[in-house]
Amino acid sequence: MLLVKRFCSGFQRIKAITNTAKPGEHLNVQGWIKNIRRLKKSIFFDLNDGSTVRRFQVVIPKSVDTKDICVGSNISATGCIQVAPNGQLELHAEHVKVIADGNITGYPFTPKQQHPPEYVREHLHLRARVDYIAAQMRLRHRALKAIHDYMDELDFVQITTSVLTTNDCEGAGEVFRVQPESDALLKEMSRPNVPVDQSYFDKKVFLSVSGQLHLEAMSYGLGNTYTLTPAFRAENSKSPLHLAEFYMFEAELAFMEDINSLTEFIEKMIKSVTLRILESAKDDLRFCQEKALGSVFELSWLKVAWTTLSYDEALNILQANKQQFKTELKPEEGFSKEQELFLAKHCGTPVFVVDWPANQKPFYMKVVQTKSERVHALDLLMPEVGELCGGSLRENDEKRLRAHPHLPQGLEWYLELRKFGGVPTGGFGLGFERYLQLLTGVKNIRDVIPFPRYPHSCQM
Amino acid sequence: MLLVKRFCSGFQRIKAITNTAKPGEHLNVQGWIKNIRRLKKSIFFDLNDGSTVRRFQVVIPKSVDTKDICVGSNISATGCIQVAPNGQLELHAEHVKVIADGNITGYPFTPKQQHPPEYVREHLHLRARVDYIAAQMRLRHRALKAIHDYMDELDFVQITTSVLTTNDCEGAGEVFRVQPESDALLKEMSRPNVPVDQSYFDKKVFLSVSGQLHLEAMSYGLGNTYTLTPAFRAENSKSPLHLAEFYMFEAELAFMEDINSLTEFIEKMIKSVTLRILESAKDDLRFCQEKALGSVFELSWLKVAWTTLSYDEALNILQANKQQFKTELKPEEGFSKEQELFLAKHCGTPVFVVDWPANQKPFYMKVVQTKSERVHALDLLMPEVGELCGGSLRENDEKRLRAHPHLPQGLEWYLELRKFGGVPTGGFGLGFERYLQLLTGVKNIRDVIPFPRYPHSCQM
Repeated sequence: MLLVKRFCSGFQRIKAITNTAKPGEHLNVQGWIKNIRRLKKSIFFDLNDGSTVRRFQVVIPKSVDTKDICVGSNISATGCIQVAPNGQLELHAEHVKVIADGNITGYPFTPKQQHPPEYVREHLHLRARVDYIAAQMRLRHRALKAIHDYMDELDFVQITTSVLTTNDCEGAGEVFRVQPESDALLKEMSRPNVPVDQSYFDKKVFLSVSGQLHLEAMSYGLGNTYTLTPAFRAENSKSPLHLAEFYMFEAELAFMEDINSLTEFIEKMIKSVTLRILESAKDDLRFCQEKALGSVFELSWLKVAWTTLSYDEALNILQANKQQFKTELKPEEGFSKEQELFLAKHCGTPVFVVDWPANQKPFYMKVVQTKSERVHALDLLMPEVGELCGGSLRENDEKRLRAHPHLPQGLEWYLELRKFGGVPTGGFGLGFERYLQLLTGVKNIRDVIPFPRYPHSCQM
Repeated sequence: MLLVKRFCSGFQRIKAITNTAKPGEHLNVQGWIKNIRRLKKSIFFDLNDGSTVRRFQVVIPKSVDTKDICVGSNISATGCIQVAPNGQLELHAEHVKVIADGNITGYPFTPKQQHPPEYVREHLHLRARVDYIAAQMRLRHRALKAIHDYMDELDFVQITTSVLTTNDCEGAGEVFRVQPESDALLKEMSRPNVPVDQSYFDKKVFLSVSGQLHLEAMSYGLGNTYTLTPAFRAENSKSPLHLAEFYMFEAELAFMEDINSLTEFIEKMIKSVTLRILESAKDDLRFCQEKALGSVFELSWLKVAWTTLSYDEALNILQANKQQFKTELKPEEGFSKEQELFLAKHCGTPVFVVDWPANQKPFYMKVVQTKSERVHALDLLMPEVGELCGGSLRENDEKRLRAHPHLPQGLEWYLELRKFGGVPTGGFGLGFERYLQLLTGVKNIRDVIPFPRYPHSCQM
């Protein structure tokens, strides 16, 4: 790790110091002052450098002039590691240099004060300096890394499906449209028979709501593939579970002919990835849980086998308990959030609901051979958050797909995939931010993503 | 690796077979038929399953009925591994099952024929079945993985900077605008004093051209950060080096005060990541190089120390050689592609050009203390592709930034970062697809990305 040392020009990060430094060691640390206590003989700075939730105490003799230093200042301190009375390591500084002046006037995050998430969100550009947001960002990093590592070990090829697309996979119409800002460019590029606002691509172009269809095209040559890319929904939703821009994990498995193999894969993947995160980001995870719900909690779903119910079985359970629901049971529309949460609670485990009525699901799902009004779809319902994953086996018969009453226009290419060797595939999508909410208990999805975009808000 | 075995339901991938199978072993393989030879006693299938560039020979007794099997069919074959006369492993099949019928009629990629990239690109949905595109996709996967691994080892936090933004970092105006497709939604969300086409976010919203400013905000709390996300440019460019949607790697290094430390970091990072790719994707890399340029080539820049020139030094070299250029030397506009390539060739190594005239660079770059008309900017010029990276130290003094004549509107938040503790940072961006072109020699950037988007083209 010579590289790290050189490139950090000598300073050490607090996470490394608190893990491996020895009393008596001389070193340099750099970071933001989170709190100051001026006592009789010494001044105490609580320092944080973004590498850990922990604050690191720096002790400075009263004789040093620190009157220009305040909360928010960034300092470089050199000195000797000692053990504080509370058993923690601290730095007894010999030299202190101010790297950047803090400024209390106008700084929105008063030290020692708890600020509600709504208030913190209003100051999005400074949010990374708030302990629990920094912890969320490190945790998010570890979760991204764990997913990439896991999929790579299983030999999946990561495909960066495009953000710009001419198709609207779910057919829901809740899409954002894209065109160049410059009217001059649109005019310069105009062609006969193309509306001028579409002249850049010669077509209407949208932001992707899902990379699934594109991933299928890739799996038809590469085998197993996955994507972890931004997805977009133009919904007017104030829900704490929805964003206009979010990250979606999607995987497509080649030669997949059995919905139970797919649910088995999903269960193993989510458990394995979560165990890796628990191992690599324990402190940050605990800190986020404590901040969100007041205490650390176990992820009990890691230790149990998950349940699979057919749609009919799930419906029977709900019907037998319908007097408990505020929401009416409408089997023709699927289940409400309340009913999803009930199913997970009733089973005491996460629940896969499979074999859904075809008319509740998109055109691309494979029909169950013995029950033509059912499709090989799955929803994964988790405690606390409800639906985490949706997936299916894909219809790989060109003729059956072509005859589907809700086949969207413009998907001739999707039919052609089947025409030239339609192998069976299946796959699923997982809302990445919702998964982070599941891990941490954070109520509002806007607090698990660096730059949340939602109705009437696109800061920075 | 019990998981892999179970979930693949018994079949093995060709990459694993050709690496580790033993003669005499019984196994099952699944894949697409790339070629068929029917000889007197046996039929030979060349099989590929997307796991490797290699084709795997499956031998079938003439007695088996294979008349429905054609190029493009997908089969499952079970049998015994044997060594072929050429020394390669092959499978002598006992059972063959057709998983999906191929279809020669209308299939655009005739076997044994070379198709020009322009033609292949017209059939974007089937491109993954073309050997060199599949190899590019695997190589791209390995490059993404190598970057994430490297940055993680150095303790950088990956930040998924948002695609949607209200700012236009470079101020170039070549942006795409975004709004909901539904007029009803726009009307439903309208508010007083907001133009109805902006009612979703209450502002004009664009696709990001760079995540740098957002990354800086995160580095002001987390230390070192990076992003590897889609970026967009609404340019009418037919250039083989430009796309409307591409991937950009950007890193922001906290406490960075010296442009030479930044160039040193970049050189080490690019060399280290490239060495990892050479190790993990050797076959695919060679295959892509051979396909692109007719032969395998060395990346000689891995083995030499790179050169750093000041802008003035670079200009002197160009002026002394100006009779060689087709393009005129215009020092007030920077260097042409031809001149960039000349500099790299002249030095015999990649070249960092530093200390640029301030008026050629964006507002956020730090002024050189001893020469106020110069900024701490860097361009990295590579052989064959020209500019690969651009970067700088960032101006961290609020007052100096505020006084900049080209400070864009709406960046009060960016100034506030400095007001509340403006630590020195520096960073750079690297065009990910251009880097892949550098590795493989692929001429057109449209062939190193799964779904290229460019003027008048947004397929699928």
